[in-house]
Amino acid sequence: MNLKRVLMGPGPSDVDARVLEALARPTIGHLDPNFIEILNEIRELLKYTFQTRNEMTLAMSGTGSAGMETCIVNLIEPGDAMLVCINGVFGNRMADVAERAGAEVTRLEVDWGRIFEPEQIKRALQKKKYKVVGIVQAETSTGAHQPIKEISDIVHESGALYLVDAVTSLGGTKVDVDGWQIDACYSGSQKCLSCPPGLSPVTFSEAAVKAMERRKTKVQSWYLDLNMIRQYWGSERLYHHTAPINMNYALLEALKMVKEERLEKRWERHLNNHYMLKTGLAAIDIHYVTQKGYELPMLNAVTIPEGVDDLKTRRQLLSEFNIEIGGGLGVFKGKVWRIGLMGAASTVSNVLLFLAALEKSLYDQGHQFEPGASIAAAITYGNPIKE
Amino acid sequence: MNLKRVLMGPGPSDVDARVLEALARPTIGHLDPNFIEILNEIRELLKYTFQTRNEMTLAMSGTGSAGMETCIVNLIEPGDAMLVCINGVFGNRMADVAERAGAEVTRLEVDWGRIFEPEQIKRALQKKKYKVVGIVQAETSTGAHQPIKEISDIVHESGALYLVDAVTSLGGTKVDVDGWQIDACYSGSQKCLSCPPGLSPVTFSEAAVKAMERRKTKVQSWYLDLNMIRQYWGSERLYHHTAPINMNYALLEALKMVKEERLEKRWERHLNNHYMLKTGLAAIDIHYVTQKGYELPMLNAVTIPEGVDDLKTRRQLLSEFNIEIGGGLGVFKGKVWRIGLMGAASTVSNVLLFLAALEKSLYDQGHQFEPGASIAAAITYGNPIKE
Repeated sequence: MNLKRVLMGPGPSDVDARVLEALARPTIGHLDPNFIEILNEIRELLKYTFQTRNEMTLAMSGTGSAGMETCIVNLIEPGDAMLVCINGVFGNRMADVAERAGAEVTRLEVDWGRIFEPEQIKRALQKKKYKVVGIVQAETSTGAHQPIKEISDIVHESGALYLVDAVTSLGGTKVDVDGWQIDACYSGSQKCLSCPPGLSPVTFSEAAVKAMERRKTKVQSWYLDLNMIRQYWGSERLYHHTAPINMNYALLEALKMVKEERLEKRWERHLNNHYMLKTGLAAIDIHYVTQKGYELPMLNAVTIPEGVDDLKTRRQLLSEFNIEIGGGLGVFKGKVWRIGLMGAASTVSNVLLFLAALEKSLYDQGHQFEPGASIAAAITYGNPIKE
Repeated sequence: MNLKRVLMGPGPSDVDARVLEALARPTIGHLDPNFIEILNEIRELLKYTFQTRNEMTLAMSGTGSAGMETCIVNLIEPGDAMLVCINGVFGNRMADVAERAGAEVTRLEVDWGRIFEPEQIKRALQKKKYKVVGIVQAETSTGAHQPIKEISDIVHESGALYLVDAVTSLGGTKVDVDGWQIDACYSGSQKCLSCPPGLSPVTFSEAAVKAMERRKTKVQSWYLDLNMIRQYWGSERLYHHTAPINMNYALLEALKMVKEERLEKRWERHLNNHYMLKTGLAAIDIHYVTQKGYELPMLNAVTIPEGVDDLKTRRQLLSEFNIEIGGGLGVFKGKVWRIGLMGAASTVSNVLLFLAALEKSLYDQGHQFEPGASIAAAITYGNPIKE
């Protein structure tokens, strides 16, 4: 089995050959001075990527959901009140994780595909005091791009800590941890960082670290206990668990590529390719399910056209073109496609290949549309838009 | 950074080029039919390696300690009584994890380096009823090889579930999950399986699965909740979290190598190289801290000779010979070396290289011994012992 796919689903995304090459370097020990140096480099590059000076910035030894759980179990003690904003699968997951950690969770909901308005959060925070407010910046199940900065002051004025899910956004659109005063933020290696899945970058502000230090109870997860893990990532280098050595080689290389491209350029690339895809899809009458104006650049959630078979289309894309796109989750199952343009997969080449392949599948299914129209629209869509 | 070490510490161990090559294959999606096939193959090979027919046999997306936490949080509900046998760091860790999961933990202890006698466990089980009894087969901090089979009946007669830590033992010495009636067992990818760290194989017996199904409370960890994860590894293939794709490629390749060599041959190889090392060390008056007759074949814990500098020796081994060995943990810090002969690192070549390198370091430090004696003893030690 040595299959090459074009990964245009909700993640993992395509991994550059440089990163795969780094992944395959000989394994060394987790206490080897050379590995410690790698962890230091990762921390510095993560600080750049998260746009933060937080000393507690590191990669957890698990996938994105482990990062979510890390933030929650380290901040929450049994009985703590937490407000979770839910407009898709990942907000729901956050509430579930928080309840398992003993939080008294209040669920604030809007319809899938929509974003939260600051006013709505303000009202919720006037009714009750919370220790933590959690929200998802890039809701991968709906393609909604939640504005994060606009809510920050409201959260902090209420005295709560601000927890942001940046699993799908980090490296693909602006995530400004310090500028937006985010207290705890987590991501995944396999989305816009284009590293294989297996690590979860997290960062904690000083206020979040203090909240951790004030805990009266032990963190319920030994594996994710940052009070212990910080002694390994910190100057003490105390053994906690055996870090996934090779995954860290890969993450370091992926982060170097982010730095070399520069964040601003990378965000711009993601946005340009998103607009091109959107323009092409519109020309064959395929539209986003997401609230207008808040579509994520790296995760394009579109309504499957009437009469078109979800599974048949995705299977054809996979078997005939090696293209993976995502189906809908939950209420969107069978109704929505999720087209990823993440990290190394966010290229003009992928946009055009996908549009052409999709057109072929639609044509094979007898769907009514003007063949070639999406490509025509995409290639003539004009100058790339600068952010 | 592209450093090649000889990994003779407590893990990670040397990784074969075949496994590194598999690791670097192009990433595919976690719901790709080809990846699902890989998970199926991993399960079958893990069943062979664990010597079990347990359907719930899979690799958790974390390192060995995540496997420990998985077993505990899935079996324990708040208030459940658990007996933990402690004779080193990993027994201690098990108790810590169990307490964080809300277990009422009773600690049964013997001195570091010693093993538990069945009688001792019998007495403890007569005093109180426990839901789970946890014990470490290969205590990596002391090199003690705990007999597991001998205690199984005692545990089951008491009505408890039998939880065994096989992190360091699996693939290097006999682990017979079905034959020894182990109810829950976890391991790590980076010890005698010689895969990079990042995955933790676990297996649950029918009785353990039933205990899980009878739970009244949710598993406190969302990330490690086997009730959810089994739906991804099972026929439903329901999305839970994004599996570490490339790490699973590597584990599959490593398990194939275990199967090709055959378990019995592999155990024998580990034992033979252990005896050779032991014979060589004895000739220069270096001896095991572990209870006589219960030394682990893959983890050799020896007393640092009087007058020899721990750090200086380990640094010289690393810088001059690229050999990593482990220092002592806890009460053994500065007093003990831990020499791993795990998986791909368990070779005659490594034994002789290590002995020669150690002799040079001892000589450079002015230590009194007969130069060449360890090599002489090792190469003349006679016919390999068959198990």
